[in-house]
Amino acid sequence: MSKSEKDARPNPAQAPKQDVSPSAARPSARIAKGFRDIEAAELKGLNEMLSVIRGVYETYGFEALETPALEYTDALGKFLPDQERPNAGVFSFQDEDDQWMSLRYDLTAPLARYVAQNMQTLPKPFRRYAYGNVYRNEKPGPGRFRQFMQFDADTVGSDSIAADAEMCMLAADTLEALGVKRGDYVIKVNSRKVLDGLRDATEIDSDSRWLSVMRALDKFDRLGRDGVALLLGSGRKDESGDFTPGAGLDEQAIFRFLQLLTFREKIDDAFGETKFLFNPVITTSEPGGPLVPRSLTSTIAFGIRHYVEQVQQRDIRTLVRLESGLSEIENLGLLIHAAGYDDGRIVFDPSVVRGLEYYTGPVFEAELTFEVKGDDGKPVRFGSVGGGGRYDDLVSRFTGERVPATGFSIGVSRLQAALALIKDRKQTALGPVVVLVMDKPEIAAYQRLTQTLRDAGIRAEMYLGSSGMKAQMKYADKRNAPCVIIQGSDERAKGEVTIKDLIEGAKAAAAIKDNKEWKEQRPAQLAVAETQMVDEVRKIIARHQD
Amino acid sequence: MSKSEKDARPNPAQAPKQDVSPSAARPSARIAKGFRDIEAAELKGLNEMLSVIRGVYETYGFEALETPALEYTDALGKFLPDQERPNAGVFSFQDEDDQWMSLRYDLTAPLARYVAQNMQTLPKPFRRYAYGNVYRNEKPGPGRFRQFMQFDADTVGSDSIAADAEMCMLAADTLEALGVKRGDYVIKVNSRKVLDGLRDATEIDSDSRWLSVMRALDKFDRLGRDGVALLLGSGRKDESGDFTPGAGLDEQAIFRFLQLLTFREKIDDAFGETKFLFNPVITTSEPGGPLVPRSLTSTIAFGIRHYVEQVQQRDIRTLVRLESGLSEIENLGLLIHAAGYDDGRIVFDPSVVRGLEYYTGPVFEAELTFEVKGDDGKPVRFGSVGGGGRYDDLVSRFTGERVPATGFSIGVSRLQAALALIKDRKQTALGPVVVLVMDKPEIAAYQRLTQTLRDAGIRAEMYLGSSGMKAQMKYADKRNAPCVIIQGSDERAKGEVTIKDLIEGAKAAAAIKDNKEWKEQRPAQLAVAETQMVDEVRKIIARHQD
Repeated sequence: MSKSEKDARPNPAQAPKQDVSPSAARPSARIAKGFRDIEAAELKGLNEMLSVIRGVYETYGFEALETPALEYTDALGKFLPDQERPNAGVFSFQDEDDQWMSLRYDLTAPLARYVAQNMQTLPKPFRRYAYGNVYRNEKPGPGRFRQFMQFDADTVGSDSIAADAEMCMLAADTLEALGVKRGDYVIKVNSRKVLDGLRDATEIDSDSRWLSVMRALDKFDRLGRDGVALLLGSGRKDESGDFTPGAGLDEQAIFRFLQLLTFREKIDDAFGETKFLFNPVITTSEPGGPLVPRSLTSTIAFGIRHYVEQVQQRDIRTLVRLESGLSEIENLGLLIHAAGYDDGRIVFDPSVVRGLEYYTGPVFEAELTFEVKGDDGKPVRFGSVGGGGRYDDLVSRFTGERVPATGFSIGVSRLQAALALIKDRKQTALGPVVVLVMDKPEIAAYQRLTQTLRDAGIRAEMYLGSSGMKAQMKYADKRNAPCVIIQGSDERAKGEVTIKDLIEGAKAAAAIKDNKEWKEQRPAQLAVAETQMVDEVRKIIARHQD
Repeated sequence: MSKSEKDARPNPAQAPKQDVSPSAARPSARIAKGFRDIEAAELKGLNEMLSVIRGVYETYGFEALETPALEYTDALGKFLPDQERPNAGVFSFQDEDDQWMSLRYDLTAPLARYVAQNMQTLPKPFRRYAYGNVYRNEKPGPGRFRQFMQFDADTVGSDSIAADAEMCMLAADTLEALGVKRGDYVIKVNSRKVLDGLRDATEIDSDSRWLSVMRALDKFDRLGRDGVALLLGSGRKDESGDFTPGAGLDEQAIFRFLQLLTFREKIDDAFGETKFLFNPVITTSEPGGPLVPRSLTSTIAFGIRHYVEQVQQRDIRTLVRLESGLSEIENLGLLIHAAGYDDGRIVFDPSVVRGLEYYTGPVFEAELTFEVKGDDGKPVRFGSVGGGGRYDDLVSRFTGERVPATGFSIGVSRLQAALALIKDRKQTALGPVVVLVMDKPEIAAYQRLTQTLRDAGIRAEMYLGSSGMKAQMKYADKRNAPCVIIQGSDERAKGEVTIKDLIEGAKAAAAIKDNKEWKEQRPAQLAVAETQMVDEVRKIIARHQD
């Protein structure tokens, strides 16, 4: 770095003077591939949303933390598929000491670094929330960007199932606080242990085959029963002709998996009772009849146990992982019930598969269940807007000490897109009042009018370009100004201003036939004393707000 | 990237399972050099601050824009001192198409890219605000980080001096809205043209010498008259022994520069009148006497003109740039006066030098004038918290078309540090109410109590660790909880809870002599019916807030 640059460091906007260069040497003005600019209306919605989420997370006792966007690559974790290509998946480079640095690809890896680094002084458990942009060096696509925002809550240092239950309740409360109606969303819970138990039960030995099975199960929501059946068997060709190889299970094994996954449907049919989904009470359906679980959680667990014992002819107690996962879910259900969330907000769903290689216990998925139009015009469920689960091995990477942790993460942009659909929010906000510049030498007078409006708390600006009246009106329209302030020499002499209501004006203009009539009527326009300006402008803004 | 990673993309927290690795292979948990974590209390202050600044900027009619953190290096500008070393000054790397990408080093270069890219559709002038982190690959030092936040406002496409005047008023309003008292700050204005004019007047031919002169002038606030004199002459050795070579001017030239720079002081002495600093009225000091400028702006301009004509024996009209700069400042003063900001909030100061190679017209500097203790314990002015100016050549880099622009940028962290000094804000906020877990099997009951508090809008959490009573109390203290909720089997049987006020409790404990007395009195502790819990907790929180 040159000395001149160093000296100028305190100046925020520093760059050498640019000569107007010949066009051959000019760079093209383009945003980087996979990135996007976010404009005023969307930012307004985003800020409101972040503020609501912050409020809920703080009510739950989480406290804020912000870690930097850049970390040493090794501190983010050796998650890289290929150490020789540190730019695959994440954006990385070497610093001046030849150390690899990376842009964070999520908020959990930096949290693990923070906890390991500050272990001695942190309260235990440590409960923090964080939000910010994360970066992925992946192929961009429609709605799939290389920079996007996540909003996370994590409890580190607690192995209590209550910490997991709380994540589900937090997710439900957050969605409702943001305006998603009860019934328009569901928080699905599963456990990595249930999944592992299913592997034991189905006796799949090969790791790679089990991975294929898990990936197939993960697509249940999107591809349905038939699509998953293909992926469990010989493979599936999608609409574009791409072929995904299958897990190669035989017919019977496929049938068994589909049985396991669709317990919920079948139980709904059989019992017609999903009201107390997480109420772990087991009753008899008729006096003296066999014991029947009343809650869906218990019902599904009951179903899985029954299936293993009756259909597979195995003692469930030999399937240690399956049994442990099922009790974990039942204990979680108990807490959900105690807190009053067992009304369909939070449900057990053994088809939920998340971050296979990452989670160690319960996993959660927040889904919006209302329908939107898909790319093909057909209605589809909006789907996942967040998820999380228990990951007990992240901090040990640094310290060797196992630190139990659980977390939940919201995909902010995706959720914001969903909220826009629900609320049908206006995507254009009302702009500032524009004070027109009629006589350039009187610019100080216009400045004073502008300042009078601002002092009254009204968003206002004086037109700062050099164009005439027509262009100024166009500018005010483009800014979505509620009204413009006009003061020509006549008005100035009388101490008056003319206020033109642009929104009323546009309506009136549409109703008027010719220019002559327009000039005579001058609709939506009134002359008032300067001292009345603030009051009149306030009335106009009040008229057009919402 | 492996297929498994692609498939798992929708899951926010994705990384392969980590085995607990032998300590030799473990990375050290450390934040990258020059970066920092920001914790809850500071983030709270930051968010409040950002919200106030946003409010003021929106009142001025600026609208929000967020550009990505990464841009193509060439689109950020060929400001790099060495094209072969794109990591000097900025963090850069090559993407998969071998294109250089960089982390933004300010918010102005991305704005230029955005404007050039969207020229056709933007309102003109385009007035936007933006805030976010920027990244500098520079040597970190105390209070000097590689990631820090800026908050910018810019008006692009206006060459009106009113746009510049407005930046100064915006800066003043923002500082006051944040709680800086009038008189505790000053917005200093100069013009690049005045500086260029001074070069003409002092007949310095060599560019490199002029650069040295400018750098010397820029240090006037920090080094004072004598330090600057050394830097203008033979050079200066600082406390650490580092030698900075001087501009090599002769005694007379040095004297002239110091004369020019200290007009303000001398004029204050001579006229004793700085009340209407920017009032451009010129009056006579006594009937029939010579014309004397009343305002400080005009006074300084008058002084500079006088100096050039009398001392240097030159016709001011031959110094076109100087005269043009002085009139620019006087026109700006006119608008400042019209808007009522000519009371010392905004002043002309010919010693202000900012971003030499960047600005083309007026430059601004926002300074806090109150004193704080310096590193050596001596009182020093807090100094600059932001600045800006007119830069007319940034967009032309892309389009060849000259687009006039002016902007103001706040150094957010530095300003936040200053506000903390003014307000003496509590740096610890009240934490959540902690519900203790007395009997593990009753965890569902504690969960219900916690949820009751949350439903009432009270920040609350159930203790999620596995330790006993003593550790739980310690945890609550560490979280700065206002109180804890205790429910043992006795209380549960009676439908009661015990609420312990931790803040009152700590005070009481200090006043109590022995353990026996403690046990008898149990200060700051009360048993109430569960139904009364919310009301009682509210009382305690109200007692301890602020």
